[in-house]
Amino acid sequence: MPKKICLAYSGGLDTSVALTWLAETYRCPVVCFVGDVGQGAGELRGIEEKALASGAAEVHVADLRKAFVTDYLWPMLRAGAVYEGRYLLGTSIARPCLGKAQVEAALERGADALAHGCTGKGNDQVRFERAYAALAPDLEVIAPWRIWDLRSREDLLAYAAKRRIPVEASAEKIYSRDRNLWHISHEGGALEDPANAPPEEVWVLTRSAKEAPDEPASVEIGFEAGSPVSLDGRRRDAVSLLEELNVRAGEHGVGRVDLVENRLVGIKSRGCYETPGGTVLAEAHRALEELVLDRDTRHAKDSLAQRYAEVVYDGAWFTPLREALDAFVKKTQERVTGSVRVRLFKGSATAVERRSPFTLHAPAFATFGADAVYDQRHAEGFIRLLSLPARIAAKGPSPAPEAPPELRARSRRAPVPF
Amino acid sequence: MPKKICLAYSGGLDTSVALTWLAETYRCPVVCFVGDVGQGAGELRGIEEKALASGAAEVHVADLRKAFVTDYLWPMLRAGAVYEGRYLLGTSIARPCLGKAQVEAALERGADALAHGCTGKGNDQVRFERAYAALAPDLEVIAPWRIWDLRSREDLLAYAAKRRIPVEASAEKIYSRDRNLWHISHEGGALEDPANAPPEEVWVLTRSAKEAPDEPASVEIGFEAGSPVSLDGRRRDAVSLLEELNVRAGEHGVGRVDLVENRLVGIKSRGCYETPGGTVLAEAHRALEELVLDRDTRHAKDSLAQRYAEVVYDGAWFTPLREALDAFVKKTQERVTGSVRVRLFKGSATAVERRSPFTLHAPAFATFGADAVYDQRHAEGFIRLLSLPARIAAKGPSPAPEAPPELRARSRRAPVPF
Amino acid sequence: MPKKICLAYSGGLDTSVALTWLAETYRCPVVCFVGDVGQGAGELRGIEEKALASGAAEVHVADLRKAFVTDYLWPMLRAGAVYEGRYLLGTSIARPCLGKAQVEAALERGADALAHGCTGKGNDQVRFERAYAALAPDLEVIAPWRIWDLRSREDLLAYAAKRRIPVEASAEKIYSRDRNLWHISHEGGALEDPANAPPEEVWVLTRSAKEAPDEPASVEIGFEAGSPVSLDGRRRDAVSLLEELNVRAGEHGVGRVDLVENRLVGIKSRGCYETPGGTVLAEAHRALEELVLDRDTRHAKDSLAQRYAEVVYDGAWFTPLREALDAFVKKTQERVTGSVRVRLFKGSATAVERRSPFTLHAPAFATFGADAVYDQRHAEGFIRLLSLPARIAAKGPSPAPEAPPELRARSRRAPVPF
Amino acid sequence: MPKKICLAYSGGLDTSVALTWLAETYRCPVVCFVGDVGQGAGELRGIEEKALASGAAEVHVADLRKAFVTDYLWPMLRAGAVYEGRYLLGTSIARPCLGKAQVEAALERGADALAHGCTGKGNDQVRFERAYAALAPDLEVIAPWRIWDLRSREDLLAYAAKRRIPVEASAEKIYSRDRNLWHISHEGGALEDPANAPPEEVWVLTRSAKEAPDEPASVEIGFEAGSPVSLDGRRRDAVSLLEELNVRAGEHGVGRVDLVENRLVGIKSRGCYETPGGTVLAEAHRALEELVLDRDTRHAKDSLAQRYAEVVYDGAWFTPLREALDAFVKKTQERVTGSVRVRLFKGSATAVERRSPFTLHAPAFATFGADAVYDQRHAEGFIRLLSLPARIAAKGPSPAPEAPPELRARSRRAPVPF
Repeated sequence: MPKKICLAYSGGLDTSVALTWLAETYRCPVVCFVGDVGQGAGELRGIEEKALASGAAEVHVADLRKAFVTDYLWPMLRAGAVYEGRYLLGTSIARPCLGKAQVEAALERGADALAHGCTGKGNDQVRFERAYAALAPDLEVIAPWRIWDLRSREDLLAYAAKRRIPVEASAEKIYSRDRNLWHISHEGGALEDPANAPPEEVWVLTRSAKEAPDEPASVEIGFEAGSPVSLDGRRRDAVSLLEELNVRAGEHGVGRVDLVENRLVGIKSRGCYETPGGTVLAEAHRALEELVLDRDTRHAKDSLAQRYAEVVYDGAWFTPLREALDAFVKKTQERVTGSVRVRLFKGSATAVERRSPFTLHAPAFATFGADAVYDQRHAEGFIRLLSLPARIAAKGPSPAPEAPPELRARSRRAPVPF
Repeated sequence: MPKKICLAYSGGLDTSVALTWLAETYRCPVVCFVGDVGQGAGELRGIEEKALASGAAEVHVADLRKAFVTDYLWPMLRAGAVYEGRYLLGTSIARPCLGKAQVEAALERGADALAHGCTGKGNDQVRFERAYAALAPDLEVIAPWRIWDLRSREDLLAYAAKRRIPVEASAEKIYSRDRNLWHISHEGGALEDPANAPPEEVWVLTRSAKEAPDEPASVEIGFEAGSPVSLDGRRRDAVSLLEELNVRAGEHGVGRVDLVENRLVGIKSRGCYETPGGTVLAEAHRALEELVLDRDTRHAKDSLAQRYAEVVYDGAWFTPLREALDAFVKKTQERVTGSVRVRLFKGSATAVERRSPFTLHAPAFATFGADAVYDQRHAEGFIRLLSLPARIAAKGPSPAPEAPPELRARSRRAPVPF
Repeated sequence: MPKKICLAYSGGLDTSVALTWLAETYRCPVVCFVGDVGQGAGELRGIEEKALASGAAEVHVADLRKAFVTDYLWPMLRAGAVYEGRYLLGTSIARPCLGKAQVEAALERGADALAHGCTGKGNDQVRFERAYAALAPDLEVIAPWRIWDLRSREDLLAYAAKRRIPVEASAEKIYSRDRNLWHISHEGGALEDPANAPPEEVWVLTRSAKEAPDEPASVEIGFEAGSPVSLDGRRRDAVSLLEELNVRAGEHGVGRVDLVENRLVGIKSRGCYETPGGTVLAEAHRALEELVLDRDTRHAKDSLAQRYAEVVYDGAWFTPLREALDAFVKKTQERVTGSVRVRLFKGSATAVERRSPFTLHAPAFATFGADAVYDQRHAEGFIRLLSLPARIAAKGPSPAPEAPPELRARSRRAPVPF
Repeated sequence: MPKKICLAYSGGLDTSVALTWLAETYRCPVVCFVGDVGQGAGELRGIEEKALASGAAEVHVADLRKAFVTDYLWPMLRAGAVYEGRYLLGTSIARPCLGKAQVEAALERGADALAHGCTGKGNDQVRFERAYAALAPDLEVIAPWRIWDLRSREDLLAYAAKRRIPVEASAEKIYSRDRNLWHISHEGGALEDPANAPPEEVWVLTRSAKEAPDEPASVEIGFEAGSPVSLDGRRRDAVSLLEELNVRAGEHGVGRVDLVENRLVGIKSRGCYETPGGTVLAEAHRALEELVLDRDTRHAKDSLAQRYAEVVYDGAWFTPLREALDAFVKKTQERVTGSVRVRLFKGSATAVERRSPFTLHAPAFATFGADAVYDQRHAEGFIRLLSLPARIAAKGPSPAPEAPPELRARSRRAPVPF
């Protein structure tokens, strides 16, 4: 039996019920860990009081925003990770950041168990618990959703009402949401059927393309070694850069995604995501890489980007593979420095201008005329050798070579050649 | 010396000059091969007369539109091939189709040499000549641009003027363009500097998002085994389906791409592409696959899609690798049947509704409640085993096992264990 | 509660105890399914009587040898699948074959539950149950090792003694073994410590290299479309071909592997494997492919072979991904026809002669002299273009192009470029 | 016209003739660069005198052995690079090492051109010239074999005789060989036909397995962070470690490979290689990694190892991709520390004992019994979720979810959903 439990607490219905349930069930003090990864001011206001009112013994609030952006979001951005071609991994990437800080809080406060409020059908339980396993393999893990008999939102509300747990939620809430500095996700309700277009009411951070301004805007993003460092020429700290970009891109309806994805736990789910600033950054970053990365590096990195996305999605952040992938990526980013102007208009973010001191794009070479490095006649040899296997195959099987007969004889003398 | 040359002829400046130059240089009849892959009616009108006026001995016009769509575009669409994350390969994919038909025409007309008008710095020469090598390894290949002394558009115009070759081009033409049923490409002029946004005058098939209708439209695309078969519920032949989609998507500004790409021949170039219908089809196809493909197949297919795109871009169509990739893809498409509604608005094409009789998305399974196939408690075991390597590593090196001493001894008896 | 259970039965200690335990625990008839995949005559002799004596209600024996070789082993051989660079997957590949036949027997006999005797720490439980899930998703699955309180070999022996279950095993058995037509595996005992060399007594199918004949032997294997069809020029059915090869290769000590592998369930284990005939076939098959596959196909296939091996190891045989991989492989094998002579000597199998009517090896082209398809001067162009990105990068950033000023101006006129 | 040429000189027939030919043809001083990568004492003795006698203006001899082993061989060994499943890349990996030192010598001595004696059909010309392009893009490159009219060994001998160039070669030399600290390669003669087993006379560094000692020997290799540091427990410098291992392994016939490989230039060639020490190191390194690398890292690294091998084979050493791959590999090697005992016998090198302080192999976990980290019941959940997609697919399409009708209605109200 645990003696002190550290719960990842958000103040929402699930973790409020979990808090009370843990204290009742294990009859031991519960430390509420609250990690601020940019859920929004409203979400965190008064959270300490709320936790204490729901039965917390202690509350530990950590501002993780800077770490979240620079240690998790920027590496993922540099890697070009996009899950199943669309999802910018906003929920996934927050989990290791939160899990790590929760473990630190637990150890600091002397807890011997870790708990979270994730359901038993989602990815997040996996991500939290993989972080726990890697960072604190000896702490017990408690996942109330996999233990208790509560089976639905209604059950939780009934439980909360009975214990007088202060919850704002009502039975009418339709969508399940998760928000941080990078994105907000939406699941449930009418979204459950992929034959339903997302109702407009789903979206939170972005205006509808229809309602967005009729004039385009643009933003210029500066990068150093693959990380964003400036907006419109002004150097910015990472958090405020992303916050401002979220506002500006959201205004133009940028960053909506509507996806049927394959969860790690073997089922498909439909998710709608808003990643306004992140969408702009991903577009700008790729556009800049187009100037700087050579073909072989580009193609190899694209291939690893898929793997990187799976690593993030699957919660395998604290693993040797993620570290090795990061080492690869970091090396490729050394010259990803420059600036990209992105146009924002009616739901689209489009890189329209790009500059880099390290560009390999040399128009002088790309055009028709003669130049110092490229003789058009070289192309003939290039093509001949490239197509040689096809040519040989098309010509059909070749005759056996005329090896000197004495050599042929020699190699056959022994009953078994050696 | 060739006795009869078959030239891939488009009627433009380059191939018009090439035609005259070939006849003059090799003093033999030149057959002009014209393949219709949907360049547009204007491009092909009067092309026979023009060829004969420029010195052709014979003209061979082939309508390749249906073959182009069903034998080249649909397989590529099913594969999900996108070069360097953006380019839908419109120019690349036309080359093997044209090259194959040209070879057939050459053999039929008794030519012993093949010629094309591609420059020595581009990808197209590679694509044409790889097709020639695979399909007609014994025919000679003549690439005038790599032989003659003409070095620029001005040189060509001067040559044409001197020989009275009928060309419409003037010295003021700014962009180099290539068009077919799938797309149109633009290079050159102000586009040469990636720091320049593409001027509006560049675009041909699509309206500017700004000028596009203020009301969204939508189109519903039906697929069978991964290939498009209907529009808005009406069965359509492949060519007219694509043609109509181009018009409808272009009207809404859909399908513009602006890319700095890595050419096969080792240089970077900036290209602007319009693929209106193709962009809608790619969006719809992927959205449908999201319902039907399981996770492992999805991820493996995405990885091969990159390779497929390189194969197409590099002109390696007539190779065993492309055939093997197609066999893989075909197997994955057996259940990619259903329909997707795509919204067109201000430059965006977004899948908003999707249905398939083979969907693996089972909302009943994805939601919170209990169900027949998923017990939330299963998740614990799943996570424990998934995180086991991290847990073992975090716990540190394990003690040597207590193997029975007599066994340990036995294995050491010989000086070298066997 | 199940009404009739179909147990995968081998007659060994684990499944004998499981049989009795199932009948006792669920108080329902148990059908023993015995699949012959070449465990060896001794293993199967009297197995029916034994099953009945241990409480089976029915016994169903199926000869799966031919199907095992042609439908499972040959496809895997053609794919070139080797797990973690060493393991030829002998145990893994038998599981889907057995699982499928067990499901068929269960359905035929009206069972509503499937059971197996695999332990809860191994890979085999996963492989059996993935086959069950894909082929009979509605049958219940019972895995006694994950349910009962027996925890060790000693517990099982005590249980068997108490119930008078006829078992041959004694407490002294050291190694856990699994045998079929392809291989035999060994685990446990002194092998548990990777610092121990495998004692000679471990090995069953192969002679020690030291004791093997001092004269080499050889065998010539004929292939058609990637599958073995003959030995020393004589056509053979698949089963007898493999059986004879096992004897001949085993005599020369061929096919031993000693590996620390990563199990699917997250732990490492040390396994020793003997795959005498399979090792010879893998060597010969690859040697033949070297003549026939072009470079791009070779490299792509090698990459997929890893994935294929994971699919087999992980028990994902009855999945769309395996089918798609097989389609890829099959296409590559169309010309893998020919013969290879393999020398067997003191533990090594080495391809020494290879012939194919489809060989792409054309010594006439590979040698120094001039030839019809290769002009040495072509190499210059090839190298120049191949090294062009490096050359451009080494020369440093290129100056901005001299675009006509009016174009540069034009693209800047609007506050946001469009 | 070059003013001073720096030639990669080996003292063999090709470069001796090239030396004289260059001086005659370009009428300028030729600096002979000789890089010692362990060709063997005999090869380099008197090489300065020979060069001067053949017309060299200067001779520059560089001892590259230590750099070759630690900066090229060890990284490649750590990466696990093996070309086409067999070739340990001995010739390939020496080229960038030699090319870099040659460029340094050229710049130091004021040369403005680089030359080599590689033929126009091989890989080595590509490897040398890619190094030149990356390191000295402004120096001219001269490849005599692609320029002169000499077409065969006989032509060279005649040329040498006429100019009285001191060459030891006779017209009877059969095999073309390349040797360094890592390996020796053999091509030509009877080897040109893959239907010929390699005659025993081919081999130089290794005894025949038949003639090898009848008693096995063994060697224990110590690694730190993936690099070999000791033999039989004694710390050794890299060069002497490899030299001794070559002798000991060669004595037992270890390291022979006979391969039909795909050259970069589009043709197949048959090569025989001897890599005695390297074969032992590769076996030992992999065996040690088996203890230390987790499954995901192992599989990702194996996949990149193929790419790494292509990079080395293709001469793409001085590229961003190789650097990025090295960064990945380096990260994975941090814990590849420990020792492995390898048995040498009759042509085989087999890891028989392995130890590492960082082993993740925990026999306590792998065996049957209960333990602290693994509850057998966890396996059920693991398997259920792993097989969930197959189960859902097998159950067939799922019914549409019962979304609340008002939501379904809402999303359809507008003619186009937004």
